[in-house]
Amino acid sequence: MFYHDAQLQYPVEVEEPDPVFAKLLQQAIGGLEGEMRVAMQYFFQAGALPDEHAEYREALMDTAAEELGHIEMLATAVNKNLRGAPVSLEDVAAGDSEFAKLAGMQPRQFLSSGLHAMPNDSNGVPFDGSWIVATGNLASDMYANILAESGGRLLASRLYEMTDDPGMKDMLAYLIARDTMHQNQWIAILKDLGDPEDLLDVHPIPDSFPDEVENQEFNYAFMSTNVEPDDDPGQPWTSGESPDSEGEFSFVNQQDLDGAPRNQEPADPRTHNDPAPADED
Amino acid sequence: MFYHDAQLQYPVEVEEPDPVFAKLLQQAIGGLEGEMRVAMQYFFQAGALPDEHAEYREALMDTAAEELGHIEMLATAVNKNLRGAPVSLEDVAAGDSEFAKLAGMQPRQFLSSGLHAMPNDSNGVPFDGSWIVATGNLASDMYANILAESGGRLLASRLYEMTDDPGMKDMLAYLIARDTMHQNQWIAILKDLGDPEDLLDVHPIPDSFPDEVENQEFNYAFMSTNVEPDDDPGQPWTSGESPDSEGEFSFVNQQDLDGAPRNQEPADPRTHNDPAPADED
Amino acid sequence: MFYHDAQLQYPVEVEEPDPVFAKLLQQAIGGLEGEMRVAMQYFFQAGALPDEHAEYREALMDTAAEELGHIEMLATAVNKNLRGAPVSLEDVAAGDSEFAKLAGMQPRQFLSSGLHAMPNDSNGVPFDGSWIVATGNLASDMYANILAESGGRLLASRLYEMTDDPGMKDMLAYLIARDTMHQNQWIAILKDLGDPEDLLDVHPIPDSFPDEVENQEFNYAFMSTNVEPDDDPGQPWTSGESPDSEGEFSFVNQQDLDGAPRNQEPADPRTHNDPAPADED
Amino acid sequence: MFYHDAQLQYPVEVEEPDPVFAKLLQQAIGGLEGEMRVAMQYFFQAGALPDEHAEYREALMDTAAEELGHIEMLATAVNKNLRGAPVSLEDVAAGDSEFAKLAGMQPRQFLSSGLHAMPNDSNGVPFDGSWIVATGNLASDMYANILAESGGRLLASRLYEMTDDPGMKDMLAYLIARDTMHQNQWIAILKDLGDPEDLLDVHPIPDSFPDEVENQEFNYAFMSTNVEPDDDPGQPWTSGESPDSEGEFSFVNQQDLDGAPRNQEPADPRTHNDPAPADED
Amino acid sequence: MFYHDAQLQYPVEVEEPDPVFAKLLQQAIGGLEGEMRVAMQYFFQAGALPDEHAEYREALMDTAAEELGHIEMLATAVNKNLRGAPVSLEDVAAGDSEFAKLAGMQPRQFLSSGLHAMPNDSNGVPFDGSWIVATGNLASDMYANILAESGGRLLASRLYEMTDDPGMKDMLAYLIARDTMHQNQWIAILKDLGDPEDLLDVHPIPDSFPDEVENQEFNYAFMSTNVEPDDDPGQPWTSGESPDSEGEFSFVNQQDLDGAPRNQEPADPRTHNDPAPADED
Amino acid sequence: MFYHDAQLQYPVEVEEPDPVFAKLLQQAIGGLEGEMRVAMQYFFQAGALPDEHAEYREALMDTAAEELGHIEMLATAVNKNLRGAPVSLEDVAAGDSEFAKLAGMQPRQFLSSGLHAMPNDSNGVPFDGSWIVATGNLASDMYANILAESGGRLLASRLYEMTDDPGMKDMLAYLIARDTMHQNQWIAILKDLGDPEDLLDVHPIPDSFPDEVENQEFNYAFMSTNVEPDDDPGQPWTSGESPDSEGEFSFVNQQDLDGAPRNQEPADPRTHNDPAPADED
Repeated sequence: MFYHDAQLQYPVEVEEPDPVFAKLLQQAIGGLEGEMRVAMQYFFQAGALPDEHAEYREALMDTAAEELGHIEMLATAVNKNLRGAPVSLEDVAAGDSEFAKLAGMQPRQFLSSGLHAMPNDSNGVPFDGSWIVATGNLASDMYANILAESGGRLLASRLYEMTDDPGMKDMLAYLIARDTMHQNQWIAILKDLGDPEDLLDVHPIPDSFPDEVENQEFNYAFMSTNVEPDDDPGQPWTSGESPDSEGEFSFVNQQDLDGAPRNQEPADPRTHNDPAPADED
Repeated sequence: MFYHDAQLQYPVEVEEPDPVFAKLLQQAIGGLEGEMRVAMQYFFQAGALPDEHAEYREALMDTAAEELGHIEMLATAVNKNLRGAPVSLEDVAAGDSEFAKLAGMQPRQFLSSGLHAMPNDSNGVPFDGSWIVATGNLASDMYANILAESGGRLLASRLYEMTDDPGMKDMLAYLIARDTMHQNQWIAILKDLGDPEDLLDVHPIPDSFPDEVENQEFNYAFMSTNVEPDDDPGQPWTSGESPDSEGEFSFVNQQDLDGAPRNQEPADPRTHNDPAPADED
Repeated sequence: MFYHDAQLQYPVEVEEPDPVFAKLLQQAIGGLEGEMRVAMQYFFQAGALPDEHAEYREALMDTAAEELGHIEMLATAVNKNLRGAPVSLEDVAAGDSEFAKLAGMQPRQFLSSGLHAMPNDSNGVPFDGSWIVATGNLASDMYANILAESGGRLLASRLYEMTDDPGMKDMLAYLIARDTMHQNQWIAILKDLGDPEDLLDVHPIPDSFPDEVENQEFNYAFMSTNVEPDDDPGQPWTSGESPDSEGEFSFVNQQDLDGAPRNQEPADPRTHNDPAPADED
Repeated sequence: MFYHDAQLQYPVEVEEPDPVFAKLLQQAIGGLEGEMRVAMQYFFQAGALPDEHAEYREALMDTAAEELGHIEMLATAVNKNLRGAPVSLEDVAAGDSEFAKLAGMQPRQFLSSGLHAMPNDSNGVPFDGSWIVATGNLASDMYANILAESGGRLLASRLYEMTDDPGMKDMLAYLIARDTMHQNQWIAILKDLGDPEDLLDVHPIPDSFPDEVENQEFNYAFMSTNVEPDDDPGQPWTSGESPDSEGEFSFVNQQDLDGAPRNQEPADPRTHNDPAPADED
Repeated sequence: MFYHDAQLQYPVEVEEPDPVFAKLLQQAIGGLEGEMRVAMQYFFQAGALPDEHAEYREALMDTAAEELGHIEMLATAVNKNLRGAPVSLEDVAAGDSEFAKLAGMQPRQFLSSGLHAMPNDSNGVPFDGSWIVATGNLASDMYANILAESGGRLLASRLYEMTDDPGMKDMLAYLIARDTMHQNQWIAILKDLGDPEDLLDVHPIPDSFPDEVENQEFNYAFMSTNVEPDDDPGQPWTSGESPDSEGEFSFVNQQDLDGAPRNQEPADPRTHNDPAPADED
Repeated sequence: MFYHDAQLQYPVEVEEPDPVFAKLLQQAIGGLEGEMRVAMQYFFQAGALPDEHAEYREALMDTAAEELGHIEMLATAVNKNLRGAPVSLEDVAAGDSEFAKLAGMQPRQFLSSGLHAMPNDSNGVPFDGSWIVATGNLASDMYANILAESGGRLLASRLYEMTDDPGMKDMLAYLIARDTMHQNQWIAILKDLGDPEDLLDVHPIPDSFPDEVENQEFNYAFMSTNVEPDDDPGQPWTSGESPDSEGEFSFVNQQDLDGAPRNQEPADPRTHNDPAPADED
C-alpha cells in the first residue's frame, strides 16, 4: 500500500520563470530518462520478486516511492517556470523576446494543461509504458536501474548547465546527488546477488542457462564485420580473458564464416503473394 | 557505408513448423529486447563518437552490422515456422489442434505480410525507435548495451525452453553464445573507459560533473520511505563504503526530512482554469 | 512525498491459476481503463492545483496513493494466475488444453517478464501517458474522473463475469466497491465546485469564458446532418430548456446553413507541391 | 452511409497569417481534445448501439458528421495561417522576427505536408486511436462525451485568448458555441437514460451489476492515505448521503486496514529468473 | 460539410458468428491497410488542395465519404461475429472449442467495448494517425493511394480466404470490387496530372525540382552494395533507358566510390559526454 | 550478412552550423519519409521473398544497405549542425538570436543525446516500426517503394529550399539524385513483374484473386457521395476504359443505392452495456 503527505521532499524555488526551461524540464518527468519511468520500473520489479527476496523488494519499493516524490518536485518546478508565460499573440510582437518564448514553449503546456506539467517528455511526446524494464531476473534488472540512474544523472547535469536560475540549480544539485546514491545502491545489490568479491560473477546473464548448451565456438569470439578482413587489433575485447572469467576472447572475420543459404520456400498461395512461384511470372 | 552478401550468418532450419512459435520469435526481431533495437542502438552510438574514439566506433559498427544479420536469421526462422500454417477457417474445426494454432497466431503475420516476419514484437506491437539509447556518454551507453545483451540472452533462453524443434534449439544456442560474447565485450569497453583495474571507476556517471557541486548531504544516503520509520537494517546498500569509492552509505527515513511546502500560485486566468482563485468559487 | 508498507490493501488469492485470465487482467493494470492511468491522473490533477485548493488536492492525492495499491493487488493476481502456466511446447500437444492456454497467453508475460504482470493492456499494448487527463480546470477533470471510474467499474464487472475463481471474484467485488465510492466522491466534488444544489451549475465548462462572446445563434441548436432534411423530432436534446439552464434547444438542418467557400490559395512554390497552380499543369 | 458537399460549415478567414498559431491549431484537429477524436468517438459509439436505440444512434451520427466538418474548418484555418510562412533560412537572419517564426513552426507542417494541416496535435504527435472511447455502455459513453466537449471548449477558449486575428476569433467563437450545445445535448441524453428527474440515477455505472455483490464494507468509504492518520474532515465526500442516493459516506484511514501479505511464489525455473529461490543464491 | 443516412452501403450478414474472425476483421477497420486510414487520408489530401484543383478535391472527398461507410459495414460485421462469443470461463472447459475461441479473441473487444468493433488493428494495436499520407504533392499522394488500395485489396483477399461464412464472403467480394475501382481511379488521376499518354511523365516526383541541380553522376546509377564487387548483371534496372525517360541506367559498386571521412568533432563539454576528447581519458 | 567500412558514401560538410536545421534534418533520419524507414522496408521485403526471386531480393538488399549509409550521412550532418549550439540560458538573453535558436532546437538533441542525431522525426516523435511496409506481394511493395522514394525526394527538395549552407545543399543534391534513381529502379521492377510493355498489367493488385469472384456491379463504378445527386461529370475516372484494361468506368450516386439496414442485436447482457434491451430502460 502507498501513503503520502503534503510536503515536497526538497524545496523548489524559481526566481526567474522561464517557459522554455519549463519545456526542457519535461524530459525529467515524462521522458525516457525521467522519474515516471524509474518510479514505475522499481515498482514493477518489486512486484515480480517472490517472498524469498523481501529485502530487495523493500529496497525497490523504498526508491519507487521516493521517485514519485521527485515527479512532484519537478512538476512544481515546471508550474513555477510557467507563471508569467506569454499566452496571447496580442501581447507580443513577432521578433521580440516574448514572442521567442511563446514560439519556444511546449504548446500543450498551455493548451492542454493550463500552464502546468504534463506526463510528456521535452519533445512533447507522451510517457510510454514500454520503457519500463522488469524482466523477473534481478541481475538484468539491476543493469536497467544503473542505466536509468546514469541516464537520469546525465540529464540532470545537462539541465543544470542549461539553467541560470539559483533555485533550479539547487534543486538539480539535489536530484543529481540522489542519482549518485541510486547508482551506488543498485550496484551494491548487483554485487550482493553473486559473489560479493566479484561484481561480474552474475555474468553471463542469465547465469542459470547451462553454459555447455550454448554454442562453444562463438561465445567468446569478437566478430569483425569490416568489409576488408583484418587481423586481431589486440584490443581488450578481442584477446585476453573475458570479464566473466569463463572464456578467452578471440577475433573472427565475418567473411571467413561458413554462412548458410536461406532455402526459403514460397508461402501458401492463399496469401496472394503473386508473383510467388517462379513459373507463374 | 554498409555492404551485404546473400548468406545467413548461421544455419536456420525448422523441422516442425509452428505458427505459435513464429509469433513468439517476433520478440527477438522487433521487441524491446530484440535485434532491431540493438542493431540501431550500436549504430547511433557509433555515430555520436568523435574521431578520437575510432576504436570504440569500429567495435560498435562491427556489432551493429552483425546484429542486422541476426534479424535476417530470425526472420527466416519466422518464415519457416509459418509454412503450412492454417489460413482458412474452412479447413479447421473449432476445437481441433489447427483451430488452436490459428487462434494463437499473430494475425498480421498472415493478413499484413503474407506469412512472413514483421517489425513487431510477440504481442504484436510495432518496433519503437524510442527504445534506442545513445546518450553521447559512452559509459552510460555501455550500461545500455550490457542491459540489452542481458535482456537478449534472457529472451533467447526463454525461447530455447519454449521450443522443442532441434533446428530452432541449435539457432538459439548460437544466438545465446553471441549474447555471451557481446555482454563481455561491452564490459571490456566499460573497463577500458576508466581505470582498467577498477570497473567502477567511471561512476558516478557522468564523471565529469563536478562532485562538489552535487548536494553533499544526500548523495550517499539510502532513503527509506516505509510508512513506519525504521533503523538502519545494515544492508550492503545502507552502510559501508559506496561501490564508487567516493562516499559512505547512510540510512535516512523520509519522514525525518524537513520537507518543503509547494507554495503554488494559480496560473494566468486566461487559462480558464476556473475555479482558480479561492475567492472566485 | 510518498510512502509505502509491505501489505496489500486487500487479500488476493487464486485457487485455479489461469494464464488466459492473467492476460485479461492486464487491462486493469496498464489499459485505458486501468489503475496506472487513474493513479497518474489524480496525481497530475493534484499537482496542477494552487494552494488555495488544498482540500481538493488532498482528496486527489489520497486516491492517487490508493490506486497505486490497486496496481499492486492486480499485479499479484496476474503473477498468481501465471504460476503453472505452460512454457514449453515440449510439454504440450497441439490441440490439448495446455496448448490452447499457451496459444492464448500474452507472449511477453513469459518472454519479457518471466511470468509476471507488465505495464501493458490486455491486447498487449503498453501503457500510454497520453491517456492521463489533467487540464488545470477542476470541473473538466472531475468529468475525466467520473468517466475513469465508470470505465473501471465496467471493466471490473466484465472481468467478474469472465472468471469462475472465488478468490478472483472476491478481489473484483472489492475493486468494484472502490469504483462505486470513487464515482461518488468525484461527483461530490463536482457539486462542490458550483452551486451544491445544482450539479450542472458548472456548465458550460469552462464557465469563466464570457457567455456573450460565444456565437449566440448556434450555442443551443441541435444540428441534424441527415442527408434528408428533417423536422424537429422533439427529443429532449432538440427542444426545451438546456440542462445548463442558460439556453433553449432548437433544431437545425445542416443543409439549411449558409455555409462558406474555402477560398484556399496554393502554398509557396518552394514546397514543390506540383502541380500547384492550375496553369502549370 | 456518409455524404458531403463542397462548403465549409462556417466561414474561415485569416487576416494576419501566423505559422505559430498554425501549430497551436493542430491541437484542435489531431489532439486528445480535438475534432478527429470526437468525430470518431461518436461514430464508434453509434456503431455499438443495437437497433432498439435508433434515436441515440441518430443523435451520435448527426454530431459525428458535424465534427468532420469542423476538422475541415480547422484544417482550412491552419492552411491559411501557413500562407507566407518562412521556408528558407536564406530569407531570414537569426534573431529577426521571421527566424523566430521559423524556429517556432511545427517542422512537419512544411516538410511533410507542404504547408498544410496534419493529423497531429500541437506538440507534433500523431492522432492516436486509443483516445476513442466507446464502451458499449451508453451512460459511460455520455461521460466520455461531456468530458470531450468540456476539454474541447476549454481548448477553444485558450486558443481564443492566444490569437489576435479577428477571423480566427470569429471562427473560435462559433466552435465554442457548438461545444456549449454538445455538452448540453449529451447531458440531456444522460438524463434520458435514467430517471429524467434525477441526473444521477444511472449511477453507479454500470447500473446492471448487482449492488449486493459488490463489497458492502468499502463501497461508500473515503480512504485517506495520508501518512498521518486523520479524523473525518467532514467534507461533502467523507460524510453524508452519497450522490447516487444508494449509500452513506464514511471515512477510513488506510493504516487502519487489516491488509494482507502477498504470499508470492517464485515462477517456473525455466523463466531463468535467477536468483529465484533463496537457496540458489 | 458531411452528412449521413441510417443505411449501410451494402448488406452485412453473418451466418456463423466467429469471434476469431471478429479479431481478424479489425485489420480492415483500424489497421495500416484499413478503412480509417484511407478515409482520413483522402480527407486530408483533399484539404491540402487549392481551389484550382476542385475536380481532384471532389474526387477525394467522394471517396473519403464512401470509406467512412465501409468502416460502418466492417464494424457491423465485427459486432455480428461477436454475438454468442464466450465471455465466461465458467461456461467453457480448457481444451474445448469454446475455450479455444475465448483464448483467441481480442481481449478488448469484450473488456473495453462490450463485444463491439474497436479502432484497432487485428493485433490489437490502436489506429495511428502517422499512417495518413497527405504531402501536398498530388502525384506523390496518388502513389500513396494506389498503395493503400493495393494493400486494402490484398487484405480483403486474405480475409476472403480465411472465412467460410457466405455472408462474409459476399461482403468481402463487394469490398474487393471497390478496391479494384479505387486503384483504377487513382491511376486515372495520376495519368491526368502529367501527359495522359505517358503514365510516368510525372517522374521524378517532385517534378518541379530543377533537374540540373540534382547530382548528375549518381541520379541513374544502380549501386551494388554486395561485399564482393560485381559486373553489371544486365537487369532492367541496371542498364537501358530509365522509366522516366530522363536518363540511362548504369551500374556502380559501392566499394569503388571515393567515399569521405566523417571528420567529427566532439560536442560541447557541457554535454558531459565524458570521455569526450581523447586526452581526457 | 552485413558488412561496413569507416567511410561515408558522400562528403558531408557544414559551413554554418544551425541547430534549427539540425532539427529539420531529423525528418530524413527517423521520419515517415526518412532513411530508417526505407532501409528497414527494403530489408523486410527482401526477407519475404522465396529463393525463386533471388534477383529481386538482391536488388532490395543492395539498396537497403545503401540507405543505411544515408542514415550515417544525415546523422553526421545533424551532429555538425549542432556544434556551437547554445546549451545554456546563461549565455543568451531572451530575444537575441541565440535565444531564438535555443528555443527552436529539438530539446532531446541536447538533453538525451548530447548534441547528436536521434532516431526521431523533425517534430521530435520517435521512429515507428509500423511504417515499414512489406506485404509479401511484390507488386504492392513496389508501390510502397515508389511512394517512399517520392516522399523522400520531396522531403529532400524542401530541405534543400530551407538551407543556405553550400555543404548541406551539395549533400542534399546527392540524396535527391539517389531518390531519382531509386524511384526509377522500383518502377523498372514493377514493369518487370508483369508484361514489360504494360506497366499496369499487374493490376488490380493482387492479380491472383480470381476476377469473377469480386462483385461485378461495383468494380468499375465511380461513387459520388455528394449530398446533391449529380450527373456523370465525364472525368477520366468516371467514364472510359479503366487503366487496368479490365473494365469500363461508370458513374453512380450513392443516394441511388439500395443500401441495407444494420439489423444489429444487443450484446450478451454480461457485458453490462446497460441500458441494452429497450424494455430494460
